[in-house]
Amino acid sequence: MTMIKDSVHDYIELGPTAEALLDTAAMQRLRSIRQLSTVQLVYPSANHTRFEHSLGVYHLASRAVDRLELEADLAERLRAAALVHDVGHGPFGHQTEAAIERHLGRHHDEIEWFLTDSDLGDALEEQGLDPEAVAATVDGRGPFGELVSGPLDVDRLDYLVRDAHHTGVPYGTIDHARLLYSLQTVDGTLALEADDVATAESALIARTLMNATVYRHHVSRIAGAMLDRASERLLADGAIDAERFARLTDAELLATLEDHAPTAEFSTRLRERRLYKRAVWTRRDDVPDRFAGLEYERTRDLEREIADVAGVDPAAVIVDSPSEPSSPESRARIVVDGELRRLEERSSLVAGLDACAAEIWRLGVYARPDDLEAVREAASSVLAVEADVVP
Amino acid sequence: MTMIKDSVHDYIELGPTAEALLDTAAMQRLRSIRQLSTVQLVYPSANHTRFEHSLGVYHLASRAVDRLELEADLAERLRAAALVHDVGHGPFGHQTEAAIERHLGRHHDEIEWFLTDSDLGDALEEQGLDPEAVAATVDGRGPFGELVSGPLDVDRLDYLVRDAHHTGVPYGTIDHARLLYSLQTVDGTLALEADDVATAESALIARTLMNATVYRHHVSRIAGAMLDRASERLLADGAIDAERFARLTDAELLATLEDHAPTAEFSTRLRERRLYKRAVWTRRDDVPDRFAGLEYERTRDLEREIADVAGVDPAAVIVDSPSEPSSPESRARIVVDGELRRLEERSSLVAGLDACAAEIWRLGVYARPDDLEAVREAASSVLAVEADVVP
Amino acid sequence: MTMIKDSVHDYIELGPTAEALLDTAAMQRLRSIRQLSTVQLVYPSANHTRFEHSLGVYHLASRAVDRLELEADLAERLRAAALVHDVGHGPFGHQTEAAIERHLGRHHDEIEWFLTDSDLGDALEEQGLDPEAVAATVDGRGPFGELVSGPLDVDRLDYLVRDAHHTGVPYGTIDHARLLYSLQTVDGTLALEADDVATAESALIARTLMNATVYRHHVSRIAGAMLDRASERLLADGAIDAERFARLTDAELLATLEDHAPTAEFSTRLRERRLYKRAVWTRRDDVPDRFAGLEYERTRDLEREIADVAGVDPAAVIVDSPSEPSSPESRARIVVDGELRRLEERSSLVAGLDACAAEIWRLGVYARPDDLEAVREAASSVLAVEADVVP
Amino acid sequence: MTMIKDSVHDYIELGPTAEALLDTAAMQRLRSIRQLSTVQLVYPSANHTRFEHSLGVYHLASRAVDRLELEADLAERLRAAALVHDVGHGPFGHQTEAAIERHLGRHHDEIEWFLTDSDLGDALEEQGLDPEAVAATVDGRGPFGELVSGPLDVDRLDYLVRDAHHTGVPYGTIDHARLLYSLQTVDGTLALEADDVATAESALIARTLMNATVYRHHVSRIAGAMLDRASERLLADGAIDAERFARLTDAELLATLEDHAPTAEFSTRLRERRLYKRAVWTRRDDVPDRFAGLEYERTRDLEREIADVAGVDPAAVIVDSPSEPSSPESRARIVVDGELRRLEERSSLVAGLDACAAEIWRLGVYARPDDLEAVREAASSVLAVEADVVP
Repeated sequence: MTMIKDSVHDYIELGPTAEALLDTAAMQRLRSIRQLSTVQLVYPSANHTRFEHSLGVYHLASRAVDRLELEADLAERLRAAALVHDVGHGPFGHQTEAAIERHLGRHHDEIEWFLTDSDLGDALEEQGLDPEAVAATVDGRGPFGELVSGPLDVDRLDYLVRDAHHTGVPYGTIDHARLLYSLQTVDGTLALEADDVATAESALIARTLMNATVYRHHVSRIAGAMLDRASERLLADGAIDAERFARLTDAELLATLEDHAPTAEFSTRLRERRLYKRAVWTRRDDVPDRFAGLEYERTRDLEREIADVAGVDPAAVIVDSPSEPSSPESRARIVVDGELRRLEERSSLVAGLDACAAEIWRLGVYARPDDLEAVREAASSVLAVEADVVP
Repeated sequence: MTMIKDSVHDYIELGPTAEALLDTAAMQRLRSIRQLSTVQLVYPSANHTRFEHSLGVYHLASRAVDRLELEADLAERLRAAALVHDVGHGPFGHQTEAAIERHLGRHHDEIEWFLTDSDLGDALEEQGLDPEAVAATVDGRGPFGELVSGPLDVDRLDYLVRDAHHTGVPYGTIDHARLLYSLQTVDGTLALEADDVATAESALIARTLMNATVYRHHVSRIAGAMLDRASERLLADGAIDAERFARLTDAELLATLEDHAPTAEFSTRLRERRLYKRAVWTRRDDVPDRFAGLEYERTRDLEREIADVAGVDPAAVIVDSPSEPSSPESRARIVVDGELRRLEERSSLVAGLDACAAEIWRLGVYARPDDLEAVREAASSVLAVEADVVP
Repeated sequence: MTMIKDSVHDYIELGPTAEALLDTAAMQRLRSIRQLSTVQLVYPSANHTRFEHSLGVYHLASRAVDRLELEADLAERLRAAALVHDVGHGPFGHQTEAAIERHLGRHHDEIEWFLTDSDLGDALEEQGLDPEAVAATVDGRGPFGELVSGPLDVDRLDYLVRDAHHTGVPYGTIDHARLLYSLQTVDGTLALEADDVATAESALIARTLMNATVYRHHVSRIAGAMLDRASERLLADGAIDAERFARLTDAELLATLEDHAPTAEFSTRLRERRLYKRAVWTRRDDVPDRFAGLEYERTRDLEREIADVAGVDPAAVIVDSPSEPSSPESRARIVVDGELRRLEERSSLVAGLDACAAEIWRLGVYARPDDLEAVREAASSVLAVEADVVP
Repeated sequence: MTMIKDSVHDYIELGPTAEALLDTAAMQRLRSIRQLSTVQLVYPSANHTRFEHSLGVYHLASRAVDRLELEADLAERLRAAALVHDVGHGPFGHQTEAAIERHLGRHHDEIEWFLTDSDLGDALEEQGLDPEAVAATVDGRGPFGELVSGPLDVDRLDYLVRDAHHTGVPYGTIDHARLLYSLQTVDGTLALEADDVATAESALIARTLMNATVYRHHVSRIAGAMLDRASERLLADGAIDAERFARLTDAELLATLEDHAPTAEFSTRLRERRLYKRAVWTRRDDVPDRFAGLEYERTRDLEREIADVAGVDPAAVIVDSPSEPSSPESRARIVVDGELRRLEERSSLVAGLDACAAEIWRLGVYARPDDLEAVREAASSVLAVEADVVP
């Protein structure tokens, strides 16, 4: 057993399989991908990486499989899946996943391709693990796959706490020790004791408050939108192969953007934190339905239209009309009198939290500071919104 | 300036007035009253006292008056009120306040009587403070009284965080630094920035989760109900003068109960943690309306009726039908576009949290372990409830 | 398994034996004895009790026996001994242990008498444990007794961390997880890896800094000395039986002092924090050797002599000439190349820390504020010291 | 005032000058330089950056100048110097500072060159600050320069706590609030109250334990030595201009190493954590004096000599014979009876800590795993040491 010191879980014990898996370029790369990508532009302490998060998820999975007394092979697979679950992430994690999906047609949770084409796949096989089965587990399929990807998976139990710890906001402090103790299986399905509804609710609440103060902070959203547009341009221009793109680190993406003239400005702006500003920032109620939760192509058309009206460079207008925040935690299962229920059926909080999530939705239009007034006016007429920045 | 080390706020700076007030028997007595009274029977670390809580409330008040740049005299009064706000508490705090109200007709927030009849009143006057004005402030009246007693007063900002810290549950971790920064006055009324709705909501949430896991825990409720009945007996028997009773410490009340034969058993049971058990523990939906939120006299009648049916000592049946938990935090004021709104008008969470609060309500009937079955049966027929203990 | 939430160790798992032992009056009494007795007069948050500390020691013992893979019976005995190790403490713990030793001739670690004369002894037997063997373990004797009472026992690992947590000083934060991982046995003797010298040193350091800022703080020493003199008077006057005295709680001792006229003043002073003040507070170098580390009888003679010279009541002069602080941690064993060494042989720090300990030694003479000048002058001539209060 | 959330100090208030200075490429670059460079290869959570550390140092400086009630202009200069004190660092901070000194002849604390040749210099002037005076302050010169660079400067108060927080080791938890409160000036010199010797000692202790467990951990030293040799090769080969080198970020240095054939292997090894291993790791007593604390040229000669004897590539042998750890904190000044003393004169701990520091010294010889045995043997004969790896 090797012990690793972690700022969230104190000591993490690594078995020989975990050590072998960590000893791959694929896993070591995660040291260079920040867990919260651009959030550090708002919360300067948020520099934790997908590497330490992966160790944390492994730790929680280890404790869960011990707790559930799973048999050795299954336990080994679940621990391995927990450890490698993030290897499919591109540079800046979620901020480039849409670009990668558009160009490669796959999501970061689908890592089968990765396990068959990296030193990590070999390492899994050497440890007697089937890469396909591990990939399925990462995707939430197969026995106890929901432990790694499900409503109350060990991934979110780690990141809600870790993200709160590193941003310094107190909201994410879930009682994960109690959630793990409360875990049980009913007919092969993971569930929590009815007694522990309050503990499960605390995970939903942490999610809701983290959305409001961290995950959906406008500075991070602006930086993320800039990264998406720059990445799209890079890929559309063929300046980099999409497979290669998907394996870059954060810094490598910035360097690649720098080297390609049409995207160089984005890289400099992100590095020097000279971001686009909000020309429009409007609540859901004030946005016509046809402009809420837009498809990508439609978004780009609107950007061009606004740029045209405003008389500015089309690359310099970003429309950001996100889908509504979801709370998968509300589908966690609760055992009530021996029967399984969804948390949302048992908890009056869930509806309130959903409403909360809707309240923090904003339509954003972002532009260079110099273009701000022109873009605001143009966006107002094109999108038929009060061009305003509301709190 | 004297510095005092506090486990929640790190260092607390005391000015000369605070030092003089602390130097009274009335304030020193608070070292012997646990903040969470019987909660330590469930959470063994919850031994913090009303003394350290008072220091914490003083600290937050000091920061708030600095932040609001109040003039010196008002600031001094508010700090003093914050420091002494809990001197009116009887032994075991909230657990005896109903008994005290029945016998003395006053609430622990009404401390004018106290300030005119203790060394603390003299100390206030020596410091140039008017005891009446301080008492009014403690009761939430007068300029900025809501800072000491109001929807987001410094009292609750301290106790929600402190109680979480000492029980070890993570729920109470409000971002009080940000709440204080966000504080402002609009036409003399305290309010928070609209930007900070999420921070204000976190206080409501902390309250809701603390209610569910700590404040309304059945073990603490049982111990509290036992204390109430024992105190009532003591006072009804004239074994102690009510004014004297109201000034006991926790340990002194136990000793007084021990010395009076009819209440000695209660004292031993509380000391040795051999508490009554739940004969009935039923959700609101399963309780006929006429038995929810009962008046005290009605409760005692029902206890006698159940005891009679069960054939047990009337002192050995306790009916506990509490009022519904309230969340005063939902009435905190928010500034939206320069206008004041209640948090409940701006936050979809509030309704969800209210529903949550309703969900944790339980009707309890408690009895000695030996009498449990007999009392359960009797209570079931008298109260027309399914005699069950639900989670 | 029952889970208990603890503010230091998060969750503590209790087995059935632990539950049965906790369910005794002897263990429940520890809820009413503060771990740091009079330290709360300096650090108002230091209200943690010997009850929660006992749970913490039990928790660390459980982890250690798991780590060492001890056989079941021995493990059970060690856990039980860890849990009950403090039942022999009198009211206010260390502050009355000298008085108890003078009158009963036994130390709080000798609990055999207690286990044969309390419900706890019966509970141990019911759980299949031999009270004598448990008592021996508490005293550090028998197999692995040093785990419960030895240079790096689980007692001090818990209290150094817990005391720091509750006073709010950061010094006691030992890496106990790593110490436990590092634990091993060499020929039946507990030892740490040579690699972990820094971790072991951190325990010594925590002790040294806690001595300086917490354990030997003059306010706590004054209050402790007052308690000792009051207790002595109580016992000498036969106002209470010594066996009964040894089983009081903190509050019961104060009440007992109150009820006995010659000691009532002490009780009021402790309750209202109107303590004696320092007439003399002098470093070791400035004190003639014959007055350093005095026997009790000699101390009382000096008090009378000083009172006589000063013309004050002999009960109103307290001489406090303590022995030098020890650091048992320095005798912890380290495995170097398979051989056992004492930490003090391997660590250059130990000598420095011993010197540090010597530096914080002070001779104190305490008196009522009104008598201060008279006593200072008298003490100066009787003790041949510069009558001064140095930092 | 802008508020920034920090994981160590909670909220940091930024004035307009600080905001303007942060808004420069020079300061934003610090987001891409890890505070502990290669330590994250041992402690995966240690990803905090010089940017957030700079904010922390600024915060402590702000509190100190408030506490000392310095006049406005001086306070402004000290805050600015605190904020920018780290801009002179090269990539990977201390790990390349020797290479930079060899090629540019300057230390990272000498930032005058930088302030006259960057947007930061302009920003300082725009804020009415003299870049030269700020540079002098960063170097510890001029009025209160020691607050920014001195025995107990705000730099080390921040990093000892921050490094402990992010590595997860508990040792660095200095009571910085108390240190700041205790700060005063005697004839223009910063000093601490004699009362607070224990607090000052805690800083020394934190340093000693952090040296042992974090700063001088062999994995980090190996990685650092690899970086130094690779950087030297890059600069000696003229593959990059030295001025440009000094302004790279961590990731940019790795990319630059990757692009230069002779250093590419180093980059890959660091990225994938396939580091050199210890062929020799020997205590000071076992090393002939002539090989302790070697000059750089001598070190390189020895590397070549060992490689020659071992028959391996000279680039593949690294000799690491560091100077002894220093503890500048021991020269902090203490006020005793109105006179200034050095902490080392007042504290018996200092000598012990110095001895401790000497004990953790090791001579290291590092090589590729394949070459390990050959290099060990060669090094043993060349350096006349027992070729061993001791704990």
